[in-house]
Order: sequence, then structure tokens, then C-alpha cells
Amino acid sequence: MTAESMQPPTPRTLAQRRADALKRLESNHQMWLATAGDGLGPHLIPVSYTWNTTTLTTATFEHSRTVANLRATQRARVAIGDTADVIMIDATASLIPVDEIDPTAADGYARVSHDPRTMPGFVYIQLAPQRIQVWNGFHEFPGRTVMADGQWLELPID
Amino acid sequence: MTAESMQPPTPRTLAQRRADALKRLESNHQMWLATAGDGLGPHLIPVSYTWNTTTLTTATFEHSRTVANLRATQRARVAIGDTADVIMIDATASLIPVDEIDPTAADGYARVSHDPRTMPGFVYIQLAPQRIQVWNGFHEFPGRTVMADGQWLELPID
Repeated sequence: MTAESMQPPTPRTLAQRRADALKRLESNHQMWLATAGDGLGPHLIPVSYTWNTTTLTTATFEHSRTVANLRATQRARVAIGDTADVIMIDATASLIPVDEIDPTAADGYARVSHDPRTMPGFVYIQLAPQRIQVWNGFHEFPGRTVMADGQWLELPID
Repeated sequence: MTAESMQPPTPRTLAQRRADALKRLESNHQMWLATAGDGLGPHLIPVSYTWNTTTLTTATFEHSRTVANLRATQRARVAIGDTADVIMIDATASLIPVDEIDPTAADGYARVSHDPRTMPGFVYIQLAPQRIQVWNGFHEFPGRTVMADGQWLELPID
């Protein structure tokens, strides 16, 4: 947080935050993936991803806690960026067996990570954002929601 | 992940990972804090912290989902570092009202963030690590556990 004696920077507009989020979703390829299961407590892993303008594609071990959690709840929360400049995404998750993945998504993922089509034991995860929040400090807490209910917003709601 | 055509780097020893983790716990002051509640799905926030050799101290809004989740489960998972070089901590969480916080912990936290003693609406969170994992790539997956059941390990267990 900016010290109270300093002038806080000007918060970005909704349009600028959306543009920055889209740029970073495309240029970045690493995220933090949080999941929760039935009474198992929170889980969190770093994982590679690709973005195809509407959906994040990633993959992890079929027998991992992340996959068990997603089978139980289908809900994920994803952070991209660093703790001081964040894109935070609440998403609906789908598990896609390797032999059912769309080849374009699989090719995109293979460019940024290993290729689950050539290594046993993995499953793809596709994440459809429902809410996206973008902020780079306390001064940007108001107006941080840029997508709600799966729709990009035209006007701030917070 | 290192491309298969490249030689993977040498994994660090248990002692080196523990030393690196302790150094980073002390020098770093930002973490990702994952929590989970009763049927609410995963939550994840970036937050400042201090480390006092055994415990992480942080704070967040009293009426936040993070605090509601910790009231329900007392379990947190914390990532420190970046996605390519991680300290991952499963911890037991305690909520400490502002007027009951140890002054040394509060002073430490105030040096790296705002001071909840001077701003209404916050509660401190103290996190006691139960398991700590340290890795900087797939080549370090074996041997990544440096603490289990709240005890630093003398020998690798994974």
C-alpha cells in the first residue's frame, strides 16, 4: 500500500484495465491455480497456460489434488501477474481427457509447456472466466471488476 | 519444464532448499494466500506478510471471504516466490483481533504494509507452517518436501 503521506497513483479506467488484462492473458503463460474440494482445504499450484480469447487451457496430473478438487466443484480461482499487479479470475473448470482435446488448444499448450499428448498421466483443464478483477494496489480496489457473470463490463460495478 | 532435448539442471539438496526457503521467507514480504470455505469454492488473495522464524503474520479485511473461510476451516495454502521458483506452504491459521496481537508481530507487519492498528476493519492472521515444499521446476519435484507435520526434515521423504 502506498504510504498515506504519498499521493496514490491514478487508478486505471475500466477500458484500460480490460485492455491490460487481455494483453497479459495473451503474453503471459504462467498462473497460480487455486481449487477446493470437499473438506480437503485449499489447494494451489503454479501451472502453464494458453489463452484463446475466451478460455484458458492448462494441464496437470490426472491423480492430483487439483483434479480431484475440480471433479468435486468445477470451480477455480486463478491469479496471473505478481502480487502487486494482479489479474484475478474466478472460472468454471472442465476436465478434458487427452484424446478429446481440441488440437489447436493442445498445440498452443505444447508451445508453452510439455505436451501431455506425448506423456502419460495428464489431463487438460479448460477454464471459462466468470469474473475477472484487475488491480495494482489498494488505490485500484474500486472498479477492479472488469468481467461479471462471464460478460465483459461496459461500466464499473464496484 | 525443461525441453526434453536439454539437460535438466541439478536439483538442490534438502539442506540447500531449506536454507533457500528460510532466506526467502525472511527477505520476501508478499505471498499468495489460498483458502477454502464450506461450499464456497477456492479463494486466493495477494497479501503482505512478515516471518518471525516460525510463523507468518499477515492481515486482511475482517469481513472478507478469506477470513470467513479461515473461520470455517483454519487451513491455508501459501505460495511465495514466482511460478518457476516456489515455496509452497500448507499452514494452520489463527485469527488474531487487532487489540490482541503481539506488538512485535504488529510492528513487523507495519514495516511491510499498512498498520491495522491505525485503520479499522482488519484482523491479523498468523500462519503456522505444517508442510513446506520447495522446487524450481519438474526436475525438483522429487525431494521437494522440506517440512512435514510442522517439523523441518533431516532426510528427504519424496
